[in-house]
Amino acid sequence: MRFDIISCQPELLTSPFSHSILKRAQQKGLVEVHIHDLRKYAINKHGQIDDYAFGGGAGMVMMIEPIDKLITELRADRAYDAIIYMTPDGQTLNQKIANQFSLLQNVIILCGHYKGVDERVRQHFVTHEISIGDYVLSGGELGAAVLADAIIRIIPGVLNDESSALTDSFQDGLLAPPVYTRPAEYKGMKVPDILLSGNNPKIEEWRFEQAVERTRQRRPDLLDE
Amino acid sequence: MRFDIISCQPELLTSPFSHSILKRAQQKGLVEVHIHDLRKYAINKHGQIDDYAFGGGAGMVMMIEPIDKLITELRADRAYDAIIYMTPDGQTLNQKIANQFSLLQNVIILCGHYKGVDERVRQHFVTHEISIGDYVLSGGELGAAVLADAIIRIIPGVLNDESSALTDSFQDGLLAPPVYTRPAEYKGMKVPDILLSGNNPKIEEWRFEQAVERTRQRRPDLLDE
Repeated sequence: MRFDIISCQPELLTSPFSHSILKRAQQKGLVEVHIHDLRKYAINKHGQIDDYAFGGGAGMVMMIEPIDKLITELRADRAYDAIIYMTPDGQTLNQKIANQFSLLQNVIILCGHYKGVDERVRQHFVTHEISIGDYVLSGGELGAAVLADAIIRIIPGVLNDESSALTDSFQDGLLAPPVYTRPAEYKGMKVPDILLSGNNPKIEEWRFEQAVERTRQRRPDLLDE
Repeated sequence: MRFDIISCQPELLTSPFSHSILKRAQQKGLVEVHIHDLRKYAINKHGQIDDYAFGGGAGMVMMIEPIDKLITELRADRAYDAIIYMTPDGQTLNQKIANQFSLLQNVIILCGHYKGVDERVRQHFVTHEISIGDYVLSGGELGAAVLADAIIRIIPGVLNDESSALTDSFQDGLLAPPVYTRPAEYKGMKVPDILLSGNNPKIEEWRFEQAVERTRQRRPDLLDE
């Protein structure tokens, strides 16, 4: 899968893609991530890519022309399955959407900044608008990194142990049950006896009950679905 | 406001805090961000901070002892208002929660990794559990960066123009209206006439209507609240 990420602050994206699972996925050849500096497509030699909003008001708006030029250049080389704009008023990302995106081949992720992009970009170029949650960030870069991470880690072959992802929260509509590791007792705090019993069917039963109970307490909305 | 972020992959956090608004907030002295490498508190010279889950199953669990040692050390120097654990089964972050957190002085953010932390850490140390959304990431680091960004940008003095944050999506329970910038016409795509009219009361009225309409179409749940 290939990601082309368009940003006016590409340096923000360096470390998330240079370490850990996102790095390994690229090294394994399963994923390509290309980060594009929108300023290289600026409308003038001052590097201008944004301007004041028509109608007034605080905050700058990202211009259509640099984005048009960059997307047109990318599309000349390959077809894209999705051009995703990260924006707080987009569709809220969830595990199901991440699963669906993980089946695509080539995607562009456009990071908003300041007050966002000129509406005409959204109307004429963007195919999907995604929000990572009901809060505002200083730019779309962290959102793009979150979206890419959620997608990349479920691409087959990326995780060393794929059964691990299958027991994550949300994959089966339940939150994950509590987990414990050594030592069995630490400063008087003990691990539940059942987990030390060696009785696997009982342990699986306990985990399922705990997952259901935790979901009921914390996220009853997930059980309704 | 002071953030102490605990991570077993601190290198993931470098670039988000070294650029843009998060950097400027630190330079202005409004925010201190300290990133702690949990491996320095490992239980042995091999740097061990995780182990297999009791009861079996895929994925590693972060041990209680290194986290206890690090948090105890931090607490010896100052009181913390919140010890926040980033986890997909936590309370879902929204703008209201970010606003509340922005009033605190000292917070610890604990990044989970692998299958998460030993449940006893959650029971005995953690005061808040926060999820940035209904999806699973490869670690809590991106979540911590998202939470910190959402909080830091609304601390008074961080944004150069604070009225910009007040017109963001969610602050008034509405999504933001569309924005446009120069040129007024680009390849036949035009900006709505009203925004070029210079009639400010009419422009504000149009923006409010657009914000309500966009919220009704995309996020009717926000209007119910």
